[in-house]
Parts: sequence; C-alpha cells; structure tokens
Amino acid sequence: MFLSKLIPLKEALDIINGFNVKISVEKISLKDTYNRVLAENIESLLDSPSFDNSAMDGYALKAEDTFGFSQSNPTYLKVVDSIGAGKASKITVKNGEAIKIATGAPIPQGANAVLMEEYTQKKENDLEVSSTVAPGENVSSRAEDFKKGDLLLKSGKKLRPQDVGIIASAGYSEITVFKKPRIGVITTGSELVMPKTPLNEAEVINSNYYTLKALVESTQAIPDITHCVDDANKVKDQIKTFLKSCDAVITTGGTAISKGDVVVDVVSELGDVLIHGVAIKPGKPFGFGMVDQTPIFMLSGYPVASMVQFDVFVRDTLLKMQQIYRKPPIIKKKASRKIASSLGRTEYIRADTDGNSAYPLKIKGSGIIRSMVESNSYIIIEENVEGIEKGEECNVLLYEALNV
Amino acid sequence: MFLSKLIPLKEALDIINGFNVKISVEKISLKDTYNRVLAENIESLLDSPSFDNSAMDGYALKAEDTFGFSQSNPTYLKVVDSIGAGKASKITVKNGEAIKIATGAPIPQGANAVLMEEYTQKKENDLEVSSTVAPGENVSSRAEDFKKGDLLLKSGKKLRPQDVGIIASAGYSEITVFKKPRIGVITTGSELVMPKTPLNEAEVINSNYYTLKALVESTQAIPDITHCVDDANKVKDQIKTFLKSCDAVITTGGTAISKGDVVVDVVSELGDVLIHGVAIKPGKPFGFGMVDQTPIFMLSGYPVASMVQFDVFVRDTLLKMQQIYRKPPIIKKKASRKIASSLGRTEYIRADTDGNSAYPLKIKGSGIIRSMVESNSYIIIEENVEGIEKGEECNVLLYEALNV
Repeated sequence: MFLSKLIPLKEALDIINGFNVKISVEKISLKDTYNRVLAENIESLLDSPSFDNSAMDGYALKAEDTFGFSQSNPTYLKVVDSIGAGKASKITVKNGEAIKIATGAPIPQGANAVLMEEYTQKKENDLEVSSTVAPGENVSSRAEDFKKGDLLLKSGKKLRPQDVGIIASAGYSEITVFKKPRIGVITTGSELVMPKTPLNEAEVINSNYYTLKALVESTQAIPDITHCVDDANKVKDQIKTFLKSCDAVITTGGTAISKGDVVVDVVSELGDVLIHGVAIKPGKPFGFGMVDQTPIFMLSGYPVASMVQFDVFVRDTLLKMQQIYRKPPIIKKKASRKIASSLGRTEYIRADTDGNSAYPLKIKGSGIIRSMVESNSYIIIEENVEGIEKGEECNVLLYEALNV
Repeated sequence: MFLSKLIPLKEALDIINGFNVKISVEKISLKDTYNRVLAENIESLLDSPSFDNSAMDGYALKAEDTFGFSQSNPTYLKVVDSIGAGKASKITVKNGEAIKIATGAPIPQGANAVLMEEYTQKKENDLEVSSTVAPGENVSSRAEDFKKGDLLLKSGKKLRPQDVGIIASAGYSEITVFKKPRIGVITTGSELVMPKTPLNEAEVINSNYYTLKALVESTQAIPDITHCVDDANKVKDQIKTFLKSCDAVITTGGTAISKGDVVVDVVSELGDVLIHGVAIKPGKPFGFGMVDQTPIFMLSGYPVASMVQFDVFVRDTLLKMQQIYRKPPIIKKKASRKIASSLGRTEYIRADTDGNSAYPLKIKGSGIIRSMVESNSYIIIEENVEGIEKGEECNVLLYEALNV
C-alpha cells in the first residue's frame, strides 16, 4: 500500500499523535538524574532537617539568660561543652550555662537559642554575653524544610539541580525515571559517503547522518545511527534489527511521493504506511508507518526537508516517550518583506529575527543547508494563507525554543 | 589572610571577571559535536553540491526537445541510459534522447534539464513526453549551497544540528572545539552523609553533593565531585589534587564570615583569597580565591545559599571556559505582594511567575531547599532598593533562562 495524495498537516499530526508511544522506566542513581523525568512521586522518607540545629557558629543557651544584657552591661555564662559538626552533646544546658556549637549541629537539651559567636567574648571558661537573643533565634527547627511523608515532587517533573538536591535530602539515593528512548536512524542513499575530500564522481556527503544524530540528541533520546544503500533487502534487514532494539525508527531518503520508493515500499511490506505525503513545504515527501507497534518516521533525503520534518513530526514523539510535554511558543514578528507562499501547503520559511522583525532568507530549496545555518527561526505560514505582506505580523518559531 | 567586610556584588563580579580563564581546545569526531563550541573557522573544503545533479527522479534531456509539446501533442525521446544514485553516465545526451536519472545523480553531458517521471510515460525504449521543461529545471547546480573556500561558520559558534550537518557537507569529519572544563567539587562538613534512612544522631544528608553535580552539568562542564570532613589537611590535600586535574575548584561549607573557617583558611594558605563575604542575600558567606592561576569558588554549606552563589558567581566562568557568552534576560513582572528587602544587600527572592505577575515565596531561609523547588525564578532586588511595593514592577530572572 502507498498513498500519494498530500494530506493536510493537522491530519498528519492527528494520525501520529493518535498512537500511544512506548514508555518505560528505570531505577538509577540519583547522581545521574539531572534533566531526567521523574517516574514516581517523591514523598520524603525523613523530616528535614531531622533535628533542631544551629543556624550559626555560636553558643547554645537559654534565651532568658541573655535578657536585658548589653555591651555596657554584659553577663557571664559557663561553657560546659562544645559540639562540632556531626556531633551531639549529652549534656543538658542549665541556667547560667552555654555550649559551644557549630553550624548544623543539634541543639543540646535545655537550650532554646543560639548566640552568634561575634556577640560573645571568651574569658577562660566564661563567656561574656553582651547582647540579647530571643527564644528560637538562630535555631533551624526539625522539619522546617519538610516533613516525613510530604509529597515533594510529582511524577512527570523534569529534574533541575534543586529538585535533585531535595530528593537527596528526602533520603533517596536511587529514583525511578522515564527511560531515554533509543532511536534507530537509517540514512539511505547509494550516493552517500562520509565526509572526505576529494569526492569521487557522483558521491554526495551524508550530512543527514550528522544532522539526524544531533537532532535526536537534542531531544535527550539516544540515537543508534547507521547508513544503508538503496537496496530493499538491506533496508528491510536494518529496520527489522532496529525494531528489536529501538523505540522508534527514523529513515532518510527513499520517500518520493510519485512512486513507491525503497523505504516506503519496505515499511508497507513490514507493516502499515499511514502517511505518505503531507501538504507542507519544505518536507512534502514525509512518510509515517507503524510496524509491530513501533513508529517509523520516513524523512526526505533532502537535508533541509528532513530537518523541518523532524521538527514538525518527530520531535514531540521522542519527547513524549520521556513524558516531556511542552509547546514551544509561537511569537509574533513583522515580516521585513513580502513573502510568497503556496495556498494549500503549510510553509516553514527559514528566517532570522531581531527585535520585532523577522527576515525571511532569500536562499531556499530543500537541499540548501545554508538556509538552516543562517537562520534562527521558522516563519510558519498556514495552509489557508496566501503569502504575507511586508510589515504584516507573522508567526515565528525560534529554533532555540525547540530545545529541551 | 582573610577578609570579613562584605563587598558589593558588582565589586565581587569585577574581581572574578578580571581573571582570564583557562581555555583549551580539542579535535574530536564531528559526530560528537552537537552543542559544543567551535574553536576554528570552518571554510568549506568542497563545492556543495560538488556537481550539477538531478533534483527529482526523472529523465535528463535537452530542454529544447520538450518545447511546444503537451498531453494532446506529445513527443517521443529515446532512452539511452539509466543513472542510479551514486552512479554517473558516460553517455552524452543528444537531441531526441533522454537518460533516466535518480534524485541526486549527476546530470549527464549534453542534458540541461530533468523532466519529472510523473510527466512521462515509458513505451518500451521510448519515452512519451507530454509537458515542457525549461533549461535548468529540476537541476541543482554545482555549489548552489556553498563554494569551496566559503566561510561557513566562525569560531565561537555553539553547534546546532544544522551546523554539524553543514560542516559534514563541507568535507570535515573532525573539528576543533573548546574543551569542556573539568570542575573539581568538594563538599565539606563532618556532619554530612549520603542519602539514607534512618539518619544517626547529628547526621545531615549532603544534598549539595547532588545539587552541585547537577549545576556543573547544567553548564556542560564535567564535574569531578568528592566529599571531605572538616579537617584542614584533608581539604588541603583534596584541593591540591584537583589543582592538578581541574580547571576550577568549587567548595561548599567552611566559609563563615565571622572567623577563618576551614576552607577559607586552607585557600588562603595555598594562594590568595580575593573575596570573602559579598553583600547578597542569601549567599553572603561567599569566597573566591586563586591558587596557581586556578579559580576556587568557596560556596556556603547552606543549600539555597550555595545554589544562588553558583548562579551569581560561578556559572558564567564555567561557560566562559567553553567560550559560551550569554546574558540571561531579566524580565519585568508585577510583584503580587509587598516584598521587604535589606538596603545594602542584593537580594535573590525565590518566586513563581505567571503571566505578568511574580509571586515571591513565603518560605525562605538559606537552608529551605523547598524554596528553590517551588519557585521558577529569582526576583532580584538591587542593593540600593529598599523593598518592592505590591503591584510594583520588579526584575525577574527565570531559572530556565540560565540553562545553556
């Protein structure tokens, strides 16, 4: 089976989004979870802090022993112990006594405040106290950050440094996160070679190999990338191999609309080709199929077309597999010049932006990589709009907004 | 030597930025360069494409042979060869002849256009041509993307997928990029333990270990992280070890302003402590030193203070080491309530935002990690401003804007 009538963009996205993606989880060391997505709720295993502790280096004492004293009228307390970091004291503080205490150390029995070291002077075993502290002053109370059982983070949260930190404080050294999907990428094309110079007659450098690897990496998924010549059996074998080890397969090349091209033919033999040809520009020869419940994204061999297709059709699925949901903002800019566009196709015009303006590039064509390199955004022109006038507001999607 | 007078934020930043950072480069496989920073100019080694080639699957022919023909009045050409992808033809196309050609294959001698396969019908060896093509139609010209010697990308460019692709097309399989700096991180504190439950008396979980590792990773630098008890000799040995292998050292804990605390004392023995105490809140007990031309950032042991200090003092240096320069935008939001702040200290109030509003969190304190977890931004209140009124515009820095 193959289709060759272009379907509207929305219809294509509905088909792709209509399938459930494979989602799996793994338990890993908390150390390695920055930017990963939490696959469990984190309820604290502990009170944090787990005991009343000193917020300062100073002296633990009874606050009432300081009341009314000042620099001109100091009082004197007896220092009966010293508590270093990680230590506790077995002594109970009584009136007229103080215990030297390090930041973070447990407040000893009997004491209810800490006087900062700066406001004291040590005279042998006596402490001259020349200022007043209130009960609770310089004390961090048990559980003042959070309590045992508190729900700190919910499943689905993409972990920032502070989130990783609070999970540690909650007592976890390992947590369950969504697995990074493994994405099999097959570039096809007998003319393609890896970068070298000079090229032999008819050889073309396989830039898609590099671009697609980086595009998959930009979603935090893991690319497993290989190249195949235009041979149906070889392409089929490679797809079958990836079906065993990968959560999705991406191909480039072999998707011509006009005829059954190698890749589309092979996918339609192995499973179902559900999309073949979408009304977008560039990127019309896009195919999408499902084989053994694994999505296969068939991108154009043209470098620019395949990048646009990745951004439009593939990126969100790879993110969804990690339970990352986001909607890159479409911003409004004024077109610096008139832009022609084809009615009935959604166009992705490469553009540069500054301030309130968008500058559509003059260079275009599905093979002109420079148009992607010299631009920072797409001007997106809906299929029912026939061009944009100079100075008119247009919809702009910045490439950097696509990054996770 | 140690200082204990708080210096203004600007003065501290001027000291840190006054030092040249170590920058080194490495030549690596182009495959691994996504998001790395280019350390050379890329001039193309090749024309791209390197030959005139077909933009379509179709027939290479002389355009003039099709002039005036249509569906009602077709003409017939003799098919004299077929060129698959990666192949070339030795045959020169003459009037009345055509050569079957695959997308991307070299245009044969004599031909000047390609007729799309859709507009033809094959009858044995004859091709029925029922439409007209213009000279150059469906031909991608040699070097139409770029020419040999063209400057495609400049040193300092952070590489996006399309940039990696164009470098491949330019003939490079390896390129020189700035090295990721290796950052030694030492958490100090005898009370600190790795996450576990239950905790013994006086033990505190070392959340900084996790947070700092993630913070360093968020800059694309490589963390080398270890913990030390509060023992001057052990801290000194660990710093010396990192001085041999790392481009910068970060410590947490042992930076109290009131007295020479372990870390500050050790750094002042090994080299120069240039900052000790900055007028910010939270994060006042920040230290910065230079030992053997390696910067040492001494952060507070308090989790929130150390995160703020990282964002304010450390992040830009780690990026500069990779030649990543950026200025996260400060945006304006209306304060949802009155915010008190201390004159003479630059305050970083944790806040949440939506629409045009910023909601300062009520929970605060240098140890309350939840204040970083439940917020998405800092409201920054300059040292010469004494609080913000409800509804007043304030300066907001989104955490996500800090990411590279």
